[in-house]
Amino acid sequence: MKITLSFEKTQTKDTSIMVDALRASTTITLALNNFNEIIPCFTPEEAFELKKEINGIIAGERSGKRVEGFDVGNSPKDVENYDTDIETLILTTSNGTRILKDMDSTVLVGSMVNAKAVGYKSVEIAENEIDVVMAGYKGNFALEDFLAAGEILYWICDRLNNECEISDYAKAAIMASRDYDALKEGFYNCNSGRKLSRLKSKKDIDCCVLKNISENVAIYENNILKLIKD
Amino acid sequence: MKITLSFEKTQTKDTSIMVDALRASTTITLALNNFNEIIPCFTPEEAFELKKEINGIIAGERSGKRVEGFDVGNSPKDVENYDTDIETLILTTSNGTRILKDMDSTVLVGSMVNAKAVGYKSVEIAENEIDVVMAGYKGNFALEDFLAAGEILYWICDRLNNECEISDYAKAAIMASRDYDALKEGFYNCNSGRKLSRLKSKKDIDCCVLKNISENVAIYENNILKLIKD
Repeated sequence: MKITLSFEKTQTKDTSIMVDALRASTTITLALNNFNEIIPCFTPEEAFELKKEINGIIAGERSGKRVEGFDVGNSPKDVENYDTDIETLILTTSNGTRILKDMDSTVLVGSMVNAKAVGYKSVEIAENEIDVVMAGYKGNFALEDFLAAGEILYWICDRLNNECEISDYAKAAIMASRDYDALKEGFYNCNSGRKLSRLKSKKDIDCCVLKNISENVAIYENNILKLIKD
Repeated sequence: MKITLSFEKTQTKDTSIMVDALRASTTITLALNNFNEIIPCFTPEEAFELKKEINGIIAGERSGKRVEGFDVGNSPKDVENYDTDIETLILTTSNGTRILKDMDSTVLVGSMVNAKAVGYKSVEIAENEIDVVMAGYKGNFALEDFLAAGEILYWICDRLNNECEISDYAKAAIMASRDYDALKEGFYNCNSGRKLSRLKSKKDIDCCVLKNISENVAIYENNILKLIKD
Protein backbone atom coordinates (compact mmCIF):
# COMPACT_ATOMS: atom_id res chain seq x y z
CA MET A 1 0.00 0.00 0.00
CA LYS A 2 1.25 3.49 -0.91
CA ILE A 3 0.62 6.14 1.76
CA THR A 4 0.99 9.85 1.01
CA LEU A 5 0.18 13.30 2.37
CA SER A 6 -0.97 16.14 0.12
CA PHE A 7 -2.03 19.75 0.35
CA GLU A 8 -5.36 20.92 -1.14
CA LYS A 9 -5.37 18.50 -4.09
CA THR A 10 -5.27 14.73 -3.90
CA GLN A 11 -2.64 12.74 -5.78
CA THR A 12 -4.67 9.55 -6.10
CA LYS A 13 -7.80 8.24 -7.80
CA ASP A 14 -7.96 5.49 -5.18
CA THR A 15 -8.78 6.64 -1.63
CA SER A 16 -8.40 10.12 -0.11
CA ILE A 17 -9.02 11.41 3.41
CA MET A 18 -9.89 15.10 3.57
CA VAL A 19 -8.67 16.82 6.75
CA ASP A 20 -9.89 20.26 7.81
CA ALA A 21 -9.35 19.79 11.53
CA LEU A 22 -10.56 23.23 12.71
CA ARG A 23 -13.46 22.82 12.17
CA ALA A 24 -15.18 21.35 9.10
CA SER A 25 -13.95 17.74 9.40
CA THR A 26 -14.87 17.57 13.07
CA THR A 27 -18.26 19.17 12.48
CA ILE A 28 -19.06 16.73 9.65
CA THR A 29 -17.99 13.74 11.76
CA LEU A 30 -20.00 14.68 14.84
CA ALA A 31 -23.00 16.04 12.87
CA LEU A 32 -23.62 12.46 11.72
CA ASN A 33 -24.82 11.77 15.28
CA ASN A 34 -27.66 14.23 14.59
CA PHE A 35 -28.30 14.14 10.83
CA ASN A 36 -28.60 11.35 8.24
CA GLU A 37 -26.93 13.31 5.51
CA ILE A 38 -24.84 16.43 5.01
CA ILE A 39 -24.82 18.39 1.76
CA PRO A 40 -21.74 20.58 1.49
CA CYS A 41 -22.27 23.89 -0.29
CA PHE A 42 -19.53 26.06 -1.58
CA THR A 43 -21.16 29.41 -1.02
CA PRO A 44 -23.78 30.77 1.40
CA GLU A 45 -25.88 31.73 -1.66
CA GLU A 46 -25.91 28.10 -2.84
CA ALA A 47 -26.94 27.01 0.66
CA PHE A 48 -29.86 29.45 0.72
CA GLU A 49 -30.98 28.28 -2.75
CA LEU A 50 -30.84 24.63 -1.68
CA LYS A 51 -32.89 25.35 1.45
CA LYS A 52 -35.71 26.60 -0.81
CA GLU A 53 -35.78 23.16 -2.46
CA ILE A 54 -35.28 20.73 0.43
CA ASN A 55 -36.09 20.54 4.11
CA GLY A 56 -32.67 21.18 5.65
CA ILE A 57 -30.88 22.96 8.45
CA ILE A 58 -28.22 25.41 7.23
CA ALA A 59 -24.92 25.52 9.10
CA GLY A 60 -21.73 27.32 8.27
CA GLU A 61 -19.23 30.08 8.60
CA ARG A 62 -17.14 32.42 6.55
CA SER A 63 -13.78 33.55 7.98
CA GLY A 64 -14.68 31.78 11.21
CA LYS A 65 -17.99 33.59 11.75
CA ARG A 66 -21.57 32.25 11.46
CA VAL A 67 -23.23 33.45 8.28
CA GLU A 68 -26.20 35.78 8.84
CA GLY A 69 -29.48 33.98 8.30
CA PHE A 70 -28.00 30.50 8.92
CA ASP A 71 -29.64 28.24 11.50
CA VAL A 72 -26.36 27.41 13.22
CA GLY A 73 -22.63 28.17 12.85
CA ASN A 74 -19.80 25.69 12.31
CA SER A 75 -19.21 24.71 15.94
CA PRO A 76 -19.07 20.91 16.06
CA LYS A 77 -20.93 20.69 19.36
CA ASP A 78 -23.59 23.23 18.32
CA VAL A 79 -24.30 21.24 15.15
CA GLU A 80 -24.20 17.88 16.93
CA ASN A 81 -26.60 19.11 19.61
CA TYR A 82 -28.89 21.24 17.41
CA ASP A 83 -32.43 20.30 18.39
CA THR A 84 -34.32 19.25 15.27
CA ASP A 85 -36.13 16.36 13.61
CA ILE A 86 -34.89 17.41 10.19
CA GLU A 87 -32.45 14.85 8.80
CA THR A 88 -30.50 16.89 6.29
CA LEU A 89 -27.73 19.37 7.15
CA ILE A 90 -26.65 21.91 4.54
CA LEU A 91 -23.07 22.87 5.47
CA THR A 92 -20.83 25.54 4.04
CA THR A 93 -17.34 26.28 5.38
CA SER A 94 -14.30 28.24 4.23
CA ASN A 95 -12.01 25.48 3.04
CA GLY A 96 -13.17 21.96 3.81
CA THR A 97 -16.21 21.88 1.53
CA ARG A 98 -14.27 23.65 -1.24
CA ILE A 99 -11.58 20.93 -1.17
CA LEU A 100 -14.12 18.08 -1.42
CA LYS A 101 -15.49 19.04 -4.82
CA ASP A 102 -12.17 18.69 -6.65
CA MET A 103 -11.59 15.05 -5.76
CA ASP A 104 -12.37 12.20 -8.11
CA SER A 105 -11.25 9.49 -5.71
CA THR A 106 -13.20 7.78 -2.93
CA VAL A 107 -13.25 10.52 -0.29
CA LEU A 108 -13.51 10.03 3.47
CA VAL A 109 -13.46 12.79 6.08
CA GLY A 110 -10.83 12.68 8.83
CA SER A 111 -10.11 14.61 12.01
CA MET A 112 -8.64 14.05 15.46
CA VAL A 113 -12.00 12.88 16.80
CA ASN A 114 -12.20 9.93 14.38
CA ALA A 115 -8.49 9.50 13.50
CA LYS A 116 -8.30 5.79 14.30
CA ALA A 117 -11.71 4.98 12.80
CA VAL A 118 -11.04 6.77 9.51
CA GLY A 119 -7.49 5.41 9.29
CA TYR A 120 -8.65 1.82 9.75
CA LYS A 121 -11.63 2.28 7.40
CA SER A 122 -9.42 3.70 4.64
CA VAL A 123 -7.25 0.57 4.75
CA GLU A 124 -10.37 -1.58 4.32
CA ILE A 125 -11.57 0.22 1.23
CA ALA A 126 -8.36 1.29 -0.56
CA GLU A 127 -7.06 -0.84 -3.42
CA ASN A 128 -3.41 0.20 -3.19
CA GLU A 129 -3.14 3.87 -2.29
CA ILE A 130 -4.33 6.20 0.48
CA ASP A 131 -3.70 9.94 0.26
CA VAL A 132 -4.40 12.17 3.25
CA VAL A 133 -5.23 15.69 2.02
CA MET A 134 -4.83 18.77 4.20
CA ALA A 135 -7.37 21.52 3.46
CA GLY A 136 -5.14 24.30 4.83
CA TYR A 137 -6.33 27.83 5.39
CA LYS A 138 -6.82 30.14 2.42
CA GLY A 139 -4.18 28.35 0.41
CA ASN A 140 -1.64 28.18 3.24
CA PHE A 141 -0.24 25.30 5.26
CA ALA A 142 -2.21 24.89 8.52
CA LEU A 143 -0.51 23.25 11.50
CA GLU A 144 -3.70 21.69 12.87
CA ASP A 145 -4.36 19.84 9.60
CA PHE A 146 -0.78 18.55 9.51
CA LEU A 147 -1.08 17.25 13.09
CA ALA A 148 -4.49 15.62 12.61
CA ALA A 149 -3.19 14.11 9.36
CA GLY A 150 -0.22 12.74 11.32
CA GLU A 151 -2.54 11.08 13.82
CA ILE A 152 -4.63 9.53 11.00
CA LEU A 153 -1.49 8.37 9.15
CA TYR A 154 -0.24 6.78 12.37
CA TRP A 155 -3.37 4.60 12.54
CA ILE A 156 -3.19 3.73 8.85
CA CYS A 157 0.35 2.42 9.38
CA ASP A 158 -0.73 0.67 12.57
CA ARG A 159 -3.51 -1.14 10.70
CA LEU A 160 -0.99 -2.18 8.01
CA ASN A 161 1.59 -3.29 10.60
CA ASN A 162 3.84 -0.65 9.02
CA GLU A 163 4.01 -2.78 5.87
CA CYS A 164 3.53 0.11 3.48
CA GLU A 165 5.42 2.53 1.29
CA ILE A 166 5.06 5.86 3.04
CA SER A 167 6.21 9.24 1.71
CA ASP A 168 8.69 11.47 3.55
CA TYR A 169 6.01 14.15 3.99
CA ALA A 170 3.59 11.66 5.56
CA LYS A 171 6.38 10.43 7.88
CA ALA A 172 7.05 14.02 8.93
CA ALA A 173 3.40 14.50 9.93
CA ILE A 174 3.43 11.32 12.00
CA MET A 175 6.59 12.47 13.80
CA ALA A 176 5.15 15.94 14.53
CA SER A 177 1.97 14.49 16.03
CA ARG A 178 3.39 11.92 18.47
CA ASP A 179 3.57 14.13 21.58
CA TYR A 180 -0.10 14.73 22.42
CA ASP A 181 0.56 17.57 24.88
CA ALA A 182 2.58 19.39 22.22
CA LEU A 183 -0.14 18.63 19.65
CA LYS A 184 -2.78 20.20 21.87
CA GLU A 185 -0.59 23.28 22.34
CA GLY A 186 -0.20 23.36 18.55
CA PHE A 187 -3.98 23.39 18.04
CA TYR A 188 -4.40 26.38 20.35
CA ASN A 189 -1.34 28.34 19.13
CA CYS A 190 -1.52 27.81 15.38
CA ASN A 191 -2.88 30.56 13.14
CA SER A 192 -6.40 29.11 12.98
CA GLY A 193 -6.41 28.34 16.72
CA ARG A 194 -5.51 31.90 17.63
CA LYS A 195 -8.15 33.21 15.24
CA LEU A 196 -10.83 31.00 16.85
CA SER A 197 -9.72 32.15 20.30
CA ARG A 198 -10.13 35.78 19.20
CA LEU A 199 -13.63 34.90 17.95
CA LYS A 200 -14.39 33.46 21.40
CA SER A 201 -14.64 29.97 19.87
CA LYS A 202 -12.00 28.39 22.08
CA LYS A 203 -14.53 25.72 23.09
CA ASP A 204 -14.49 24.50 19.49
CA ILE A 205 -10.75 23.83 19.76
CA ASP A 206 -11.37 21.94 23.02
CA CYS A 207 -13.65 19.65 21.01
CA CYS A 208 -11.61 19.36 17.79
CA VAL A 209 -8.44 18.29 19.61
CA LEU A 210 -10.07 15.29 21.32
CA LYS A 211 -8.52 12.07 20.05
CA ASN A 212 -10.57 9.09 18.87
CA ILE A 213 -13.87 9.88 20.58
CA SER A 214 -15.98 8.96 17.52
CA GLU A 215 -16.38 5.90 15.32
CA ASN A 216 -18.21 7.95 12.66
CA VAL A 217 -16.60 7.99 9.22
CA ALA A 218 -18.20 10.19 6.57
CA ILE A 219 -17.93 9.25 2.90
CA TYR A 220 -18.55 11.80 0.13
CA GLU A 221 -20.63 10.39 -2.75
CA ASN A 222 -22.84 12.17 -5.29
CA ASN A 223 -22.24 15.47 -3.48
CA ILE A 224 -23.56 14.08 -0.21
CA LEU A 225 -21.73 13.13 2.98
CA LYS A 226 -23.09 10.08 4.80
CA LEU A 227 -21.90 7.54 7.34
CA ILE A 228 -19.90 4.90 5.47
CA LYS A 229 -21.62 1.52 5.49
CA ASP A 230 -19.87 -1.42 7.13
CA MET B 1 11.33 38.81 14.46
CA LYS B 2 9.48 36.85 11.79
CA ILE B 3 10.52 33.18 11.48
CA THR B 4 9.50 31.05 8.50
CA LEU B 5 10.27 27.76 6.75
CA SER B 6 10.39 27.48 2.95
CA PHE B 7 11.02 24.89 0.28
CA GLU B 8 13.62 25.51 -2.45
CA LYS B 9 13.09 29.28 -2.70
CA THR B 10 13.49 31.80 0.09
CA GLN B 11 10.68 34.20 0.99
CA THR B 12 12.91 36.92 2.44
CA LYS B 13 15.55 39.41 1.36
CA ASP B 14 16.78 39.53 4.94
CA THR B 15 18.44 36.33 6.26
CA SER B 16 18.08 32.77 4.93
CA ILE B 17 19.53 29.49 6.16
CA MET B 18 19.96 26.87 3.42
CA VAL B 19 19.50 23.29 4.67
CA ASP B 20 20.57 20.26 2.62
CA ALA B 21 21.16 17.94 5.54
CA LEU B 22 22.22 14.83 3.55
CA ARG B 23 24.90 15.85 2.67
CA ALA B 24 25.83 19.26 1.20
CA SER B 25 25.18 21.44 4.25
CA THR B 26 27.11 19.11 6.52
CA THR B 27 29.98 18.80 4.05
CA ILE B 28 30.23 22.60 3.69
CA THR B 29 30.16 23.10 7.46
CA LEU B 30 32.83 20.51 8.26
CA ALA B 31 34.97 21.31 5.19
CA LEU B 32 35.67 24.70 6.75
CA ASN B 33 37.91 22.85 9.23
CA ASN B 34 40.13 21.95 6.26
CA PHE B 35 39.66 24.73 3.66
CA ASN B 36 39.54 28.52 3.83
CA GLU B 37 36.94 28.86 1.14
CA ILE B 38 34.46 26.75 -0.79
CA ILE B 39 33.29 27.63 -4.27
CA PRO B 40 30.01 25.90 -5.14
CA CYS B 41 29.64 24.88 -8.76
CA PHE B 42 26.40 23.92 -10.36
CA THR B 43 27.72 21.35 -12.81
CA PRO B 44 30.74 19.03 -12.90
CA GLU B 45 31.79 20.76 -16.17
CA GLU B 46 31.88 24.12 -14.42
CA ALA B 47 33.98 22.58 -11.64
CA PHE B 48 36.52 21.17 -14.13
CA GLU B 49 36.73 24.57 -15.91
CA LEU B 50 37.31 26.37 -12.61
CA LYS B 51 40.05 23.93 -11.61
CA LYS B 52 41.96 24.97 -14.74
CA GLU B 53 41.97 28.56 -13.46
CA ILE B 54 42.59 28.19 -9.73
CA ASN B 55 44.41 25.85 -7.39
CA GLY B 56 41.55 23.90 -5.89
CA ILE B 57 40.40 20.48 -4.80
CA ILE B 58 37.25 19.28 -6.56
CA ALA B 59 34.62 17.48 -4.47
CA GLY B 60 31.16 16.40 -5.37
CA GLU B 61 28.52 13.93 -6.38
CA ARG B 62 25.67 13.46 -8.77
CA SER B 63 22.79 11.22 -7.70
CA GLY B 64 24.77 10.36 -4.59
CA LYS B 65 27.87 9.09 -6.42
CA ARG B 66 31.34 10.68 -6.68
CA VAL B 67 31.87 12.24 -10.08
CA GLU B 68 34.59 10.57 -12.16
CA GLY B 69 37.77 12.64 -12.18
CA PHE B 70 36.91 14.47 -8.95
CA ASP B 71 39.49 14.46 -6.11
CA VAL B 72 36.93 13.46 -3.51
CA GLY B 73 33.18 12.73 -3.20
CA ASN B 74 30.64 14.52 -1.05
CA SER B 75 31.22 12.60 2.18
CA PRO B 76 31.56 15.18 4.97
CA LYS B 77 34.30 13.24 6.76
CA ASP B 78 36.24 12.50 3.55
CA VAL B 79 36.25 16.20 2.67
CA GLU B 80 37.06 17.32 6.21
CA ASN B 81 39.97 14.88 6.43
CA TYR B 82 41.27 15.18 2.85
CA ASP B 83 45.04 15.59 3.16
CA THR B 84 46.06 18.74 1.31
CA ASP B 85 47.64 22.17 1.73
CA ILE B 86 45.36 23.67 -0.91
CA GLU B 87 42.96 26.14 0.68
CA THR B 88 40.13 26.21 -1.85
CA LEU B 89 37.47 23.54 -2.25
CA ILE B 90 35.40 23.42 -5.43
CA LEU B 91 32.14 21.67 -4.49
CA THR B 92 29.29 20.50 -6.66
CA THR B 93 26.26 18.65 -5.30
CA SER B 94 22.82 17.70 -6.58
CA ASN B 95 20.61 20.19 -4.78
CA GLY B 96 22.34 22.29 -2.15
CA THR B 97 24.59 24.29 -4.43
CA ARG B 98 21.75 24.73 -6.94
CA ILE B 99 19.53 26.27 -4.24
CA LEU B 100 22.21 28.77 -3.13
CA LYS B 101 22.45 30.63 -6.42
CA ASP B 102 18.80 31.77 -6.43
CA MET B 103 18.92 33.65 -3.13
CA ASP B 104 19.34 37.39 -2.91
CA SER B 105 19.27 37.46 0.88
CA THR B 106 22.13 36.97 3.34
CA VAL B 107 22.61 33.20 3.15
CA LEU B 108 23.98 30.95 5.89
CA VAL B 109 24.35 27.17 5.69
CA GLY B 110 22.64 25.01 8.30
CA SER B 111 22.63 21.34 9.25
CA MET B 112 22.28 19.14 12.31
CA VAL B 113 26.01 19.44 13.08
CA ASN B 114 25.84 23.24 13.48
CA ALA B 115 22.12 23.71 14.25
CA LYS B 116 22.60 25.72 17.44
CA ALA B 117 25.51 27.76 16.06
CA VAL B 118 23.74 28.72 12.82
CA GLY B 119 20.45 29.40 14.64
CA TYR B 120 22.11 31.75 17.14
CA LYS B 121 24.23 33.44 14.43
CA SER B 122 21.18 34.09 12.25
CA VAL B 123 19.50 35.96 15.11
CA GLU B 124 22.62 38.17 15.46
CA ILE B 125 22.66 39.21 11.82
CA ALA B 126 18.96 39.30 10.81
CA GLU B 127 17.18 42.64 10.80
CA ASN B 128 13.65 41.31 11.27
CA GLU B 129 13.21 38.06 9.35
CA ILE B 130 14.85 34.63 9.21
CA ASP B 131 13.74 32.08 6.62
CA VAL B 132 15.01 28.49 6.81
CA VAL B 133 15.02 26.98 3.32
CA MET B 134 14.90 23.23 2.69
CA ALA B 135 16.78 22.11 -0.42
CA GLY B 136 14.71 18.94 -0.84
CA TYR B 137 15.60 16.20 -3.27
CA LYS B 138 14.93 16.71 -6.98
CA GLY B 139 12.04 19.05 -6.30
CA ASN B 140 10.47 16.87 -3.61
CA PHE B 141 10.05 17.32 0.13
CA ALA B 142 12.89 15.59 2.00
CA LEU B 143 12.32 14.45 5.58
CA GLU B 144 15.94 14.99 6.68
CA ASP B 145 15.86 18.66 5.64
CA PHE B 146 12.57 19.19 7.49
CA LEU B 147 14.02 17.64 10.66
CA ALA B 148 17.33 19.53 10.52
CA ALA B 149 15.35 22.73 9.81
CA GLY B 150 13.25 21.95 12.89
CA GLU B 151 16.37 21.65 15.04
CA ILE B 152 17.74 24.97 13.69
CA LEU B 153 14.35 26.69 14.18
CA TYR B 154 14.28 25.41 17.75
CA TRP B 155 17.56 27.20 18.50
CA ILE B 156 16.44 30.38 16.74
CA CYS B 157 13.37 30.50 19.02
CA ASP B 158 15.53 29.64 22.02
CA ARG B 159 17.86 32.58 21.30
CA LEU B 160 14.82 34.86 20.97
CA ASN B 161 13.23 33.51 24.17
CA ASN B 162 10.33 32.50 21.92
CA GLU B 163 9.50 36.17 21.38
CA CYS B 164 8.96 35.87 17.65
CA GLU B 165 6.24 35.48 15.06
CA ILE B 166 6.70 31.94 13.77
CA SER B 167 4.82 30.37 10.86
CA ASP B 168 2.72 27.22 11.22
CA TYR B 169 5.08 25.34 8.88
CA ALA B 170 8.12 26.28 10.98
CA LYS B 171 6.27 25.19 14.13
CA ALA B 172 5.50 21.84 12.50
CA ALA B 173 9.20 21.24 11.78
CA ILE B 174 10.15 22.03 15.39
CA MET B 175 7.51 19.58 16.64
CA ALA B 176 8.68 16.80 14.29
CA SER B 177 12.31 17.16 15.39
CA ARG B 178 11.94 17.10 19.19
CA ASP B 179 12.40 13.34 19.72
CA TYR B 180 16.06 12.78 18.83
CA ASP B 181 15.79 8.98 18.63
CA ALA B 182 12.89 9.32 16.18
CA LEU B 183 14.84 11.97 14.27
CA LYS B 184 17.80 9.62 13.87
CA GLU B 185 15.50 6.86 12.65
CA GLY B 186 14.03 9.42 10.21
CA PHE B 187 17.48 10.21 8.79
CA TYR B 188 18.18 6.52 8.09
CA ASN B 189 14.70 5.64 6.79
CA CYS B 190 13.86 8.67 4.65
CA ASN B 191 14.18 8.45 0.88
CA SER B 192 17.67 10.00 0.79
CA GLY B 193 18.85 7.95 3.76
CA ARG B 194 17.82 4.68 2.14
CA LYS B 195 19.50 5.76 -1.08
CA LEU B 196 22.76 6.50 0.76
CA SER B 197 22.56 3.15 2.52
CA ARG B 198 22.20 1.41 -0.84
CA LEU B 199 25.27 3.33 -2.03
CA LYS B 200 27.15 2.02 1.03
CA SER B 201 27.37 5.57 2.38
CA LYS B 202 25.67 4.82 5.69
CA LYS B 203 28.68 6.30 7.51
CA ASP B 204 27.76 9.68 6.01
CA ILE B 205 24.35 9.52 7.70
CA ASP B 206 26.11 8.63 10.98
CA CYS B 207 27.98 11.93 10.61
CA CYS B 208 25.15 14.14 9.29
CA VAL B 209 22.77 13.23 12.13
CA LEU B 210 25.16 14.36 14.89
CA LYS B 211 23.72 17.33 16.75
CA ASN B 212 25.68 20.50 17.47
CA ILE B 213 29.21 19.15 17.12
CA SER B 214 30.46 22.18 15.14
CA GLU B 215 30.57 25.93 15.72
CA ASN B 216 31.30 26.57 12.04
CA VAL B 217 28.78 28.74 10.21
CA ALA B 218 29.31 29.24 6.49
CA ILE B 219 28.11 32.43 4.79
CA TYR B 220 27.61 32.66 1.02
CA GLU B 221 28.94 35.91 -0.46
CA ASN B 222 30.11 36.71 -4.00
CA ASN B 223 29.68 33.04 -4.96
CA ILE B 224 32.04 31.90 -2.21
CA LEU B 225 31.30 30.11 1.06
CA LYS B 226 33.47 31.15 4.02
CA LEU B 227 33.35 31.02 7.79
CA ILE B 228 31.24 33.95 8.98
CA LYS B 229 33.28 36.53 10.88
CA ASP B 230 32.41 37.24 14.51
